[in-house]
Amino acid sequence: MLFHVRMNVQLPPSMPADEAARLKADEKVLAQRLQEEGAWRHLWRIAGQYANVSIFDVESNEALHALLMSLPLFPYMQIEVTPLCRHPSSIRLDDR
Amino acid sequence: MLFHVRMNVQLPPSMPADEAARLKADEKVLAQRLQEEGAWRHLWRIAGQYANVSIFDVESNEALHALLMSLPLFPYMQIEVTPLCRHPSSIRLDDR
Amino acid sequence: MLFHVRMNVQLPPSMPADEAARLKADEKVLAQRLQEEGAWRHLWRIAGQYANVSIFDVESNEALHALLMSLPLFPYMQIEVTPLCRHPSSIRLDDR
Amino acid sequence: MLFHVRMNVQLPPSMPADEAARLKADEKVLAQRLQEEGAWRHLWRIAGQYANVSIFDVESNEALHALLMSLPLFPYMQIEVTPLCRHPSSIRLDDR
Amino acid sequence: MLFHVRMNVQLPPSMPADEAARLKADEKVLAQRLQEEGAWRHLWRIAGQYANVSIFDVESNEALHALLMSLPLFPYMQIEVTPLCRHPSSIRLDDR
Amino acid sequence: MLFHVRMNVQLPPSMPADEAARLKADEKVLAQRLQEEGAWRHLWRIAGQYANVSIFDVESNEALHALLMSLPLFPYMQIEVTPLCRHPSSIRLDDR
Amino acid sequence: MLFHVRMNVQLPPSMPADEAARLKADEKVLAQRLQEEGAWRHLWRIAGQYANVSIFDVESNEALHALLMSLPLFPYMQIEVTPLCRHPSSIRLDDR
Amino acid sequence: MLFHVRMNVQLPPSMPADEAARLKADEKVLAQRLQEEGAWRHLWRIAGQYANVSIFDVESNEALHALLMSLPLFPYMQIEVTPLCRHPSSIRLDDR
Amino acid sequence: MLFHVRMNVQLPPSMPADEAARLKADEKVLAQRLQEEGAWRHLWRIAGQYANVSIFDVESNEALHALLMSLPLFPYMQIEVTPLCRHPSSIRLDDR
Amino acid sequence: MLFHVRMNVQLPPSMPADEAARLKADEKVLAQRLQEEGAWRHLWRIAGQYANVSIFDVESNEALHALLMSLPLFPYMQIEVTPLCRHPSSIRLDDR
Repeated sequence: MLFHVRMNVQLPPSMPADEAARLKADEKVLAQRLQEEGAWRHLWRIAGQYANVSIFDVESNEALHALLMSLPLFPYMQIEVTPLCRHPSSIRLDDR
Repeated sequence: MLFHVRMNVQLPPSMPADEAARLKADEKVLAQRLQEEGAWRHLWRIAGQYANVSIFDVESNEALHALLMSLPLFPYMQIEVTPLCRHPSSIRLDDR
Repeated sequence: MLFHVRMNVQLPPSMPADEAARLKADEKVLAQRLQEEGAWRHLWRIAGQYANVSIFDVESNEALHALLMSLPLFPYMQIEVTPLCRHPSSIRLDDR
Repeated sequence: MLFHVRMNVQLPPSMPADEAARLKADEKVLAQRLQEEGAWRHLWRIAGQYANVSIFDVESNEALHALLMSLPLFPYMQIEVTPLCRHPSSIRLDDR
Repeated sequence: MLFHVRMNVQLPPSMPADEAARLKADEKVLAQRLQEEGAWRHLWRIAGQYANVSIFDVESNEALHALLMSLPLFPYMQIEVTPLCRHPSSIRLDDR
Repeated sequence: MLFHVRMNVQLPPSMPADEAARLKADEKVLAQRLQEEGAWRHLWRIAGQYANVSIFDVESNEALHALLMSLPLFPYMQIEVTPLCRHPSSIRLDDR
Repeated sequence: MLFHVRMNVQLPPSMPADEAARLKADEKVLAQRLQEEGAWRHLWRIAGQYANVSIFDVESNEALHALLMSLPLFPYMQIEVTPLCRHPSSIRLDDR
Repeated sequence: MLFHVRMNVQLPPSMPADEAARLKADEKVLAQRLQEEGAWRHLWRIAGQYANVSIFDVESNEALHALLMSLPLFPYMQIEVTPLCRHPSSIRLDDR
Repeated sequence: MLFHVRMNVQLPPSMPADEAARLKADEKVLAQRLQEEGAWRHLWRIAGQYANVSIFDVESNEALHALLMSLPLFPYMQIEVTPLCRHPSSIRLDDR
Repeated sequence: MLFHVRMNVQLPPSMPADEAARLKADEKVLAQRLQEEGAWRHLWRIAGQYANVSIFDVESNEALHALLMSLPLFPYMQIEVTPLCRHPSSIRLDDR
């Protein structure tokens, strides 16, 4: 099942640089593992913003929530979730 | 180059049913051709709404605009365009 | 899987009364069948508005979309879908 | 009488971890007691957000306000209250 | 129990003048009866708008909804309901 | 002359508890005096929020502004003022 | 007493040209009389929009409402009223 | 003096095609004359929308208003005007 | 040339009282000089808010920007600028 | 390819003055180099705000994003990107 998720990240200006760097590094490791496993299908940067649009392929709302909560940057994110489904005009078989 | 486009469709209630059907049919034909050609990369339905999220892969803003203007349903759409670019954590080589 | 759906209904003032009545009657029949079948778990009226908050229990985003599209009043509705999941403090076993 | 309540929680980044943990633990204890007593009918997590949708069954606006004010996380919540009432198409007898 | 209700009225420009006048007259008769009965406690005009702020004193959400739905102008109103309760600093005994 | 005033209070999380308590106590004393004097006609709590809806009966905009500025909690309030006037359907003689 | 009023005018596209012209002419006559009488203190056009910002000098909210309701274009206006009062730094004695 | 103007065009669906075409043709003729004369400095299409961003170079607010009101499509436009001025970091001498 | 400017002031709660007082005093001195010189035509307090509506009479956008930037409170202000021009129904000759 | 970018800058009040000055100086140096190189085509100040409207001429969304991320003030900016394309009525050959 596919979900469209927009994430806007806002780190507090007072956060020490090394802590921010560590958070981002951990985020990247987890994001890449989730992509390899297939849950995180697409991850695009929104041009000009510290934000991304992602497409997740998960079993359920629960799975999606657990995944997002596990992201190191979660406490510093504004997240919008939009459930997607197959479009009658789509020709991509796996874009369920 | 990738663009995230959200399209909300609102046909006037007064539009005759056959005219609406013809418009939708024309839209589907063109949408599927554009997907085959690669410009229209992803097309998902937003659950519960007469709206879609699409990812377009085009050469330029001009190309995107021309493509969207050519859609039969364009006059009845509210469209938001968000330019995307490669995310540093993305592992999908072709998700430029 | 549970989805929170808010539906605001706006019938065009120009719609003949009998047509509106027929639409509402059809909507009621379908809504009650879907509740009996379990898909439409909760249906509450928002006090003071021609709108409702509903909780749907469906297999997937697709199932939710198909169900909502099948509602006779769908063309006259503004719909917002919010995916829900189990709250760690919930004691209701079936409030998945 | 039923009320739909949406709660978005935002703890200040500067709050010490143990204080946050204690607040959450107290919140869980109270939330579960109120569910057992019947006032807090439904409690669902909004997928992807530190937020919930709840349905309260209380005697009056006063009772609702007193209950919400008593929540340990109240000072860190944005709360929206929507009064509900029985929907003419609802078949659930106790969904007053 | 008190509810704060804001009503914005928007009659379609195409409505014949006599029909509009009749609706308004019926609305006034009902509004005054409800005030006499005590349900409609306060009714104020918002300066500069075809809108009012009202305070209703009713038994329940259901009662409020039934009352508002019975207003002749209901189909042409945008309504926002805000549940009120006694303020700890209020000295007006009957401002429950 | 009547004014509808909505006040949302937001005390900074960093404010010491005793200072907050003192501010609230001072606010209550002043609010009750102003009610006794008649300027602060109605004061209701919005269920679920640290906010109130009030109706003020004052001579002029100046008088209203001076009164609101004098409130101890003023620096921590978001305030919306809506001028009211007598509704043609109101039967309450003193609801000018 | 001064009130800041913003008026956005939107005539229905279907309105015959001569009816629109007559409405505008009546509006101008009334507006100029009210300015001569002093109630309508300032009337400025917002550059690029069929809208104006006005400053009214009236006795009360009632007077303001009666005046605005009397405008021929009132049914086609979106109006926002903001009560003003003397600024402590103002040197214009009559800018009460 | 430079002004940033965003224009969103919305022609009524009921407008006959030939009338729409004539309006657009007149608009183009005037737009090109104003560009030749220098008042209309920049005119860009917003990708995906029937809207444009323009930069006008005019003597005054009055001049800007008169120019915009003279556009054949003005009655069908939503217009936002933002006054610009020279940026301290700009190296373009004529970007006053 | 006239500009409508709305200024909402928000001083950080952590700012020492004397610093705030000094800023406000400097602001008043400058505001009164600019009024005497004619640039700051009108300055009204918005009832109930730490905000004002002002009308500036300046030569250009640049002049307006320089003036606003020079205000001691500028760093703590949210400012909206709306260019005004003469209204065809205005009878005040100097309300250019 | 042209992009319309609006940048609102908000430096934290707690930032030391010299650090702010250094950031602004670095920003100016980079902005001027990018203008000389042609990527930063237009840079205008929004009158009354610490914000600008810019037009960028870049090869792709990626190029735009890299450029914006490189700005010293980027962490303190709210940025909106709107892709532009040639307007059919534009006579400026290089306003691609």
